[in-house]
Amino acid sequence: MVDLYEAMSTLRAVRRLKPDPVPAEVLGRVLQAAAWAPTGGNVQPFRIVAVKQPALKQGLGDLYHAEWHEYSKGHIAAMPGMREAAREQMAKMLKAGDYLASHMAETPVILVFCFNPDYMAITDSGLGRPSIVGGGSVYTAVQNVMLACRAEGLGCVLTTLLCHKEQAVKELLDIPADWYTCAHVPIGYPVLKGHGPISRRPLDKLVYSDQWAQPFTE
Amino acid sequence: MVDLYEAMSTLRAVRRLKPDPVPAEVLGRVLQAAAWAPTGGNVQPFRIVAVKQPALKQGLGDLYHAEWHEYSKGHIAAMPGMREAAREQMAKMLKAGDYLASHMAETPVILVFCFNPDYMAITDSGLGRPSIVGGGSVYTAVQNVMLACRAEGLGCVLTTLLCHKEQAVKELLDIPADWYTCAHVPIGYPVLKGHGPISRRPLDKLVYSDQWAQPFTE
Repeated sequence: MVDLYEAMSTLRAVRRLKPDPVPAEVLGRVLQAAAWAPTGGNVQPFRIVAVKQPALKQGLGDLYHAEWHEYSKGHIAAMPGMREAAREQMAKMLKAGDYLASHMAETPVILVFCFNPDYMAITDSGLGRPSIVGGGSVYTAVQNVMLACRAEGLGCVLTTLLCHKEQAVKELLDIPADWYTCAHVPIGYPVLKGHGPISRRPLDKLVYSDQWAQPFTE
Repeated sequence: MVDLYEAMSTLRAVRRLKPDPVPAEVLGRVLQAAAWAPTGGNVQPFRIVAVKQPALKQGLGDLYHAEWHEYSKGHIAAMPGMREAAREQMAKMLKAGDYLASHMAETPVILVFCFNPDYMAITDSGLGRPSIVGGGSVYTAVQNVMLACRAEGLGCVLTTLLCHKEQAVKELLDIPADWYTCAHVPIGYPVLKGHGPISRRPLDKLVYSDQWAQPFTE
């Protein structure tokens, strides 16, 4: 039994994961958490491919490594202009990210979340701005999975970089033409402490009362 | 203290909400849950407008009512072709949805989730298919809020219909040009039983092993 608020308030991005296998019943509970998530019209327009086969994990890992390299280059270039605290934070994240990119294939399970937009009512399409509402029927499940990992003592991190290589991922995992990918969550026991304290903005920087920019007062 | 799995497995869409106020400390905990959610690069590219002022709730309610009417018309038209169980389920949902549409303004709080795509790395844009990855940095927080409501005995439901009237909502709530809306979550104590058993697909219809359509075996 894990308290809900305890799980939420200590859910960190854990990027250093041991190769030790995840027991079947533990993985079953983590996946059940995804199935419980609410989705628009209860349609559940997502599927999860739980990748454990070494050759397939290697394939995903190779694709991820190349994408990560590109991604981290951009951040490294931006670091000299950062304040010291932010720069240190970034250096730490990049180091952990390098570890993940080099060890992706060794993580015991990679969960690839797929979705089918034909089964979604995407109410913010055609508004002339980036649409995100389709995510409302998948990332609820992703968050449940990550909270369940936290409860089970597993580390995990939500990655989306592999969307840049979606076609290659689809071919590797035999994903049909009308299904797409939106999250790749490596799961495993933490090398270091794993979950723990998190750093977030204070509530009054995230919440307004009644109208934009009106101070939130409980 | 509420067990994580207990909260997840009993989180229902609750559409009949009492007008009774939500105590400040309870609402504070629900909003804190949003703040804890993971977001891409820990940027937290979302803001929540917690609408309690009657005139503003009425404005949202009027907009919602019109959208709901359109939405339910489509479902009513499709009902004759449905199997009996699905038709009964739909009739129940529509009745609860009618209630919400008629009482939106009376719910004690409506949380309007806003996001700014400039602060998001949307890795699935430009793929020639609907993009949803931006949602990965907002619906994690929405799910945390709903789970917190469940823990606090509050009913809630994730709605996105008001995106169809985004400009009107932005004017009403004074939301700046570069911020958009993606979820409208009315919150209140349930009129009926509120949370409880949920109906979801069995795990083997949602999860595959290693590759698409390969049976999931724990």
